[in-house]
Amino acid sequence: MAAHIASRKAQMEVYMLVRDPVVCHSINDNHCNNKYFPDHKLPKNVVATTDAQTALLKADYCLHAVPVQFSTAFLEGIASYVDPALPFISLSKGLELNTLRMMSQIIPQALRNPRQPFIALSGPSFALELMNKLPTAMVVATKDKKLANAAQQLLASSYLRINTSSDVTGVEIAGALKNVLAIAAGIVDGMHLGNNSMAALVAQGCSEIRWLATKMGAKPTTITGLSGTGDIMLTCFVNLSRNRMVGVRLGSGEKLEDILGSMNQVAEGISTAGAVIALAQKYNVKMPVSTAVARIIDNELTPKKAVYELMNLPQVEEV
Amino acid sequence: MAAHIASRKAQMEVYMLVRDPVVCHSINDNHCNNKYFPDHKLPKNVVATTDAQTALLKADYCLHAVPVQFSTAFLEGIASYVDPALPFISLSKGLELNTLRMMSQIIPQALRNPRQPFIALSGPSFALELMNKLPTAMVVATKDKKLANAAQQLLASSYLRINTSSDVTGVEIAGALKNVLAIAAGIVDGMHLGNNSMAALVAQGCSEIRWLATKMGAKPTTITGLSGTGDIMLTCFVNLSRNRMVGVRLGSGEKLEDILGSMNQVAEGISTAGAVIALAQKYNVKMPVSTAVARIIDNELTPKKAVYELMNLPQVEEV
Repeated sequence: MAAHIASRKAQMEVYMLVRDPVVCHSINDNHCNNKYFPDHKLPKNVVATTDAQTALLKADYCLHAVPVQFSTAFLEGIASYVDPALPFISLSKGLELNTLRMMSQIIPQALRNPRQPFIALSGPSFALELMNKLPTAMVVATKDKKLANAAQQLLASSYLRINTSSDVTGVEIAGALKNVLAIAAGIVDGMHLGNNSMAALVAQGCSEIRWLATKMGAKPTTITGLSGTGDIMLTCFVNLSRNRMVGVRLGSGEKLEDILGSMNQVAEGISTAGAVIALAQKYNVKMPVSTAVARIIDNELTPKKAVYELMNLPQVEEV
Repeated sequence: MAAHIASRKAQMEVYMLVRDPVVCHSINDNHCNNKYFPDHKLPKNVVATTDAQTALLKADYCLHAVPVQFSTAFLEGIASYVDPALPFISLSKGLELNTLRMMSQIIPQALRNPRQPFIALSGPSFALELMNKLPTAMVVATKDKKLANAAQQLLASSYLRINTSSDVTGVEIAGALKNVLAIAAGIVDGMHLGNNSMAALVAQGCSEIRWLATKMGAKPTTITGLSGTGDIMLTCFVNLSRNRMVGVRLGSGEKLEDILGSMNQVAEGISTAGAVIALAQKYNVKMPVSTAVARIIDNELTPKKAVYELMNLPQVEEV
């Protein structure tokens, strides 16, 4: 996203806060993120820093991409450098384990500023394709209509469409639960159950997310739209995400400990799956696919048993 | 479907009406459909015939799989052998060009019996996976609840879940317009626009179908469910259908005449695309993706120009 925004306006300074000094030097000296995009030249107006205060000084926007489970600690650490009027555009997706909070709650609470402007940015967008300027469409969601338009101005380009939404809950819940469905899709793949199964599972998963989200106050059309079904389809049918890969390995019979031990990136869906069971109970919604993923992760259910259970649920009238 | 039903109950006689005498002999002599499933043994209680009267004699159900554009002529030809109480389970998907009728209208009208029992069978179901007994889920839609339960009894098995629905219009419209979206998805693929584009296009297409279908009296949840979004995802993201292949070739720059000249099977989406423009006008619904496909097929628009137009539509608030 830093590269995308910087490439839109050469006079804009885009600071990237990174942890790894090697990545920082690679960006500043060679204009290249050697760790994630070794083949891509970054715009020269992307400047890396390992110092949050430098990154935040006089910032007009902050794009937040720290994984959900680490966001509270991270934000508390930088809170003193954050202007209370600085809009946060969140790219992080998931539910905080134990508290069940989403980023729209985590950010203002960690910064101790209930009025910190917040925008959720979501939608089907593999970073590599955006780097290659392939046509992409996303959604910015915020309660503040003026802020939505400003974010649209900041982000939209000839190859990136930005729709707006006031349904922050819908966009966030779909973004979070998508990662749980991605694990389910991976399991179907790892078990070689075929495309019919995949489509049935993803359709059921979309309905489950819609049932939960509407009980939480979201609009059903947010869940069936670009940042809901659109993003879910991409994540489930195209095999690129970490979450889906965890599922494939679970479906092939590997143990979760072994899978996690071999990964060097976060699969947000694993933490979110745990939170889903609690949410389904809290809002009294039946979510057989989503909760099956959590039970498989918790070693309460084998993938094979889960398929048997799902195939033997009562055959219902469609709702 | 004949093989599936026959395999459920050995004592049931399943007649398959085929046109090609070679296929007919292959099924009866070798229990194999040499043309479409050369590697699969058919159950011995599948009996092929080229004679409609033989197939229809004392039938309890008729599964109708003749392509939509040929159904009226076919049904008029067999009408005199059809018991007026024989339930038709339709697998055909599409809109009749010029009349804009769907199978629920075509069947009773061609048979001159407004009360001919009708069921639409739809959902994400590649035939080969069903032949291989991989888990699959489908929907039967009929206004008659008793008939829905009977069809469920006939079709459901340990690997095929059958949900029921009273929303015949929703199931039929989604099944028909899916084939138009499949062409659009093929075009995106043929142009190498990437997965982000594919997801955005399919999500937009699902919304367009929902807008139209609800104006026609369908329930929105039918379009977002198994026989809607579920089937659309499968058709658009998994590259197996004839409709999608037509799109891939259009997207690569081939001319429609050349594509059609090289195909020996019907791509229903081509006829349906023409009908979509008329439906969108009749019901006053904006359907930019679906109508772009029709305009590409009619040579009024190049795929490249279509992408440019779609990317430059006003960026809207999500609905």
